[in-house]
Amino acid sequence: MLKLSERSSIMPASPIRKLVPYAEAAKKRGTKVYHLNIGQPDINTPDIAYDAIKNLNIKIAAYSHSAGNESYRKGLADYYKNVGIDINFENILVTTGGSEAIIFAFLVTMDPGDEVIIPEPFYTNYNGFAVQAGVKIVPVTSYIESGFALPSISEFEKLITNKTKAILICNPNNPTGYLYSKEELRQLRDLVIKYNLFLFTDEVYREFCYDGNEHYSVLQLKGLDKNAILFDSVSKRYSECGLRIGAFVSRNKTVIETALKYAQARLSPPLLGQIAGEASLKVGKEYFDKVYNEYIKRRNYIIKALNKIDGVYAPMPKGAFYTVVKLPVEDAEDFCVWLLNDFEYKNETVMLAPATGFYSTHGKGKNEIRIAYVLKTEDLERSVKIIEEALKVYKNKFYN
Amino acid sequence: MLKLSERSSIMPASPIRKLVPYAEAAKKRGTKVYHLNIGQPDINTPDIAYDAIKNLNIKIAAYSHSAGNESYRKGLADYYKNVGIDINFENILVTTGGSEAIIFAFLVTMDPGDEVIIPEPFYTNYNGFAVQAGVKIVPVTSYIESGFALPSISEFEKLITNKTKAILICNPNNPTGYLYSKEELRQLRDLVIKYNLFLFTDEVYREFCYDGNEHYSVLQLKGLDKNAILFDSVSKRYSECGLRIGAFVSRNKTVIETALKYAQARLSPPLLGQIAGEASLKVGKEYFDKVYNEYIKRRNYIIKALNKIDGVYAPMPKGAFYTVVKLPVEDAEDFCVWLLNDFEYKNETVMLAPATGFYSTHGKGKNEIRIAYVLKTEDLERSVKIIEEALKVYKNKFYN
Repeated sequence: MLKLSERSSIMPASPIRKLVPYAEAAKKRGTKVYHLNIGQPDINTPDIAYDAIKNLNIKIAAYSHSAGNESYRKGLADYYKNVGIDINFENILVTTGGSEAIIFAFLVTMDPGDEVIIPEPFYTNYNGFAVQAGVKIVPVTSYIESGFALPSISEFEKLITNKTKAILICNPNNPTGYLYSKEELRQLRDLVIKYNLFLFTDEVYREFCYDGNEHYSVLQLKGLDKNAILFDSVSKRYSECGLRIGAFVSRNKTVIETALKYAQARLSPPLLGQIAGEASLKVGKEYFDKVYNEYIKRRNYIIKALNKIDGVYAPMPKGAFYTVVKLPVEDAEDFCVWLLNDFEYKNETVMLAPATGFYSTHGKGKNEIRIAYVLKTEDLERSVKIIEEALKVYKNKFYN
Repeated sequence: MLKLSERSSIMPASPIRKLVPYAEAAKKRGTKVYHLNIGQPDINTPDIAYDAIKNLNIKIAAYSHSAGNESYRKGLADYYKNVGIDINFENILVTTGGSEAIIFAFLVTMDPGDEVIIPEPFYTNYNGFAVQAGVKIVPVTSYIESGFALPSISEFEKLITNKTKAILICNPNNPTGYLYSKEELRQLRDLVIKYNLFLFTDEVYREFCYDGNEHYSVLQLKGLDKNAILFDSVSKRYSECGLRIGAFVSRNKTVIETALKYAQARLSPPLLGQIAGEASLKVGKEYFDKVYNEYIKRRNYIIKALNKIDGVYAPMPKGAFYTVVKLPVEDAEDFCVWLLNDFEYKNETVMLAPATGFYSTHGKGKNEIRIAYVLKTEDLERSVKIIEEALKVYKNKFYN
């Protein structure tokens, strides 16, 4: 008998995969579905990126350098300098999305069976990359009650074994919207230095920080040159998710040289995306201001509106464009399915992401969902109304 | 002490990496270097691909479906039907280059420690993908004396253990240019069915078959629907190496569903490359005819000219655009370094790829090199002259 690999049996499917057929069926019935379940921004990609592609003047769409085009890496180094991160282009590998940067980091620093500690809830796809690399994610739980602040360092220390090779944070955080403070990052620095660990930091939402809070990068901390590896991407920054252009950044020369070996095996990152990404570096403050104003309006609206619903709690996110929401239900996944399958309000419903997919600890987040506020405020208003009405019906149906 | 992973220590660097500094130094000295070492075609990418990109009319460069755009997959299914492979779009996942298709196949069907048998010499980067997936490549040697024909089935059988999960062939072959016959493929079919193995087939050079030989795909063989996984790419077909668009094709539904989980983790293949790739499906016969005529001219010239040099032997390749060449030297890598570092003929030299990098068995291919005939005939003429003159000097220097 032909058998597939054992690792494939533990490879997680997309956590919203179960919901997709219900969403499709709802649409077929003529019900409009608002998608709060996915972080695909509705913001336009800057014209400057399209212009670069349209003005393309090459004869052969050849392989780029495995580390990425030098002109783009130099441009990226300038971008980092502008946001207070002092590095040069040789510290950067251009990757196929932030995804590939994460896989490279796992492969470069960890062997099968090694462990990486990640505050949960965390970005679901870390699970898939961990399976791919054969490494184990050890979750340290953060709590909605404290707005998903960094768990105390002693909680991390309890989890460190001789298999622990790294700590991974996402800052600002997907799915919680939490923005780590300079003080929290300093604590993490001291911890990784004490235990000789790598510190991976996923900073793809760097530009999305609210209320005057400044983003502070792990690469701005002194003493971490050997330990820190930064993951980055153009996906959210410039609404260029489809380009699949990310970056792997480290001051540790051996780390870069080793990651380059993995990069060489796959020859080169996407050429056209690099050209668009390089052009996007020229995007001005007015683009980000517009995006910022749009998101802050959405965030302020949705958090306030959600918290007005009886039994619902959503902490105020300081970054990214997500929030984890506690619902007055026992099983949020069941509620999400029911919303698509059994409910509509004025011929509309919403698709939400059950939060269990973002927790590694079994049973955690059962009454939570993640919302991506990537729709215009008008659609968010309708979505919140639908959730409110749905909860009334759902509670009456199941709890009375 | 911060340590990198053990797998990174066995992760191979690009085999020509050692040569690169010598090539750069030669160029700095003002010596012209002909690159016969890399399979980057000099053929122009079809205009139709650029036009599709230039006429792009989207607002948001969003994620595509994780399996690739449906319109592109449908177009690909038509392409396969046209070349005699009857599949539908649901048998296809669009991947980030052929590279990712190979990684997916290893992950889907094999666990760490499992074995895949590959005729050597083989495409070097299979080694990197194997390290990444933790699987072991078991080489079965093919020989220049028989033009690198498929080793006998009994040679394969000797290597099959309970860890063996798959056989991988590249057809037409990189680096040998060998084109497997229908009979050889049938033998492989019977073998994989007998031992319950997967049959991976890298067919990215499908369009490059010479002398009236037709390409025969493993997916055209009956009885292999469960076993066969095809790797494909637009890189060589349309000279679109930089787009990073490949395909993972199988009639085994569970294989496709499982590969999709890995595809979902990385969200989507590159959007712009997919658009260019889809447009390229409309490339007409005249494009391929032109390319074909160019390559056959080059091949006929270079094989004849190389075989005229005293002590040099190159079999006539029936496909792709490579040939492995036996040289009258003891250590071809040393010769390759020497060509760049110590030799020039009329202020020019050549960069060749030592063949040892394509063999897994230690010591094999020590007096062989791989040549990619991706330069225009005029440059190939100069390159052959340089090799001829170089061999005279090199032999006098080291063997007298």
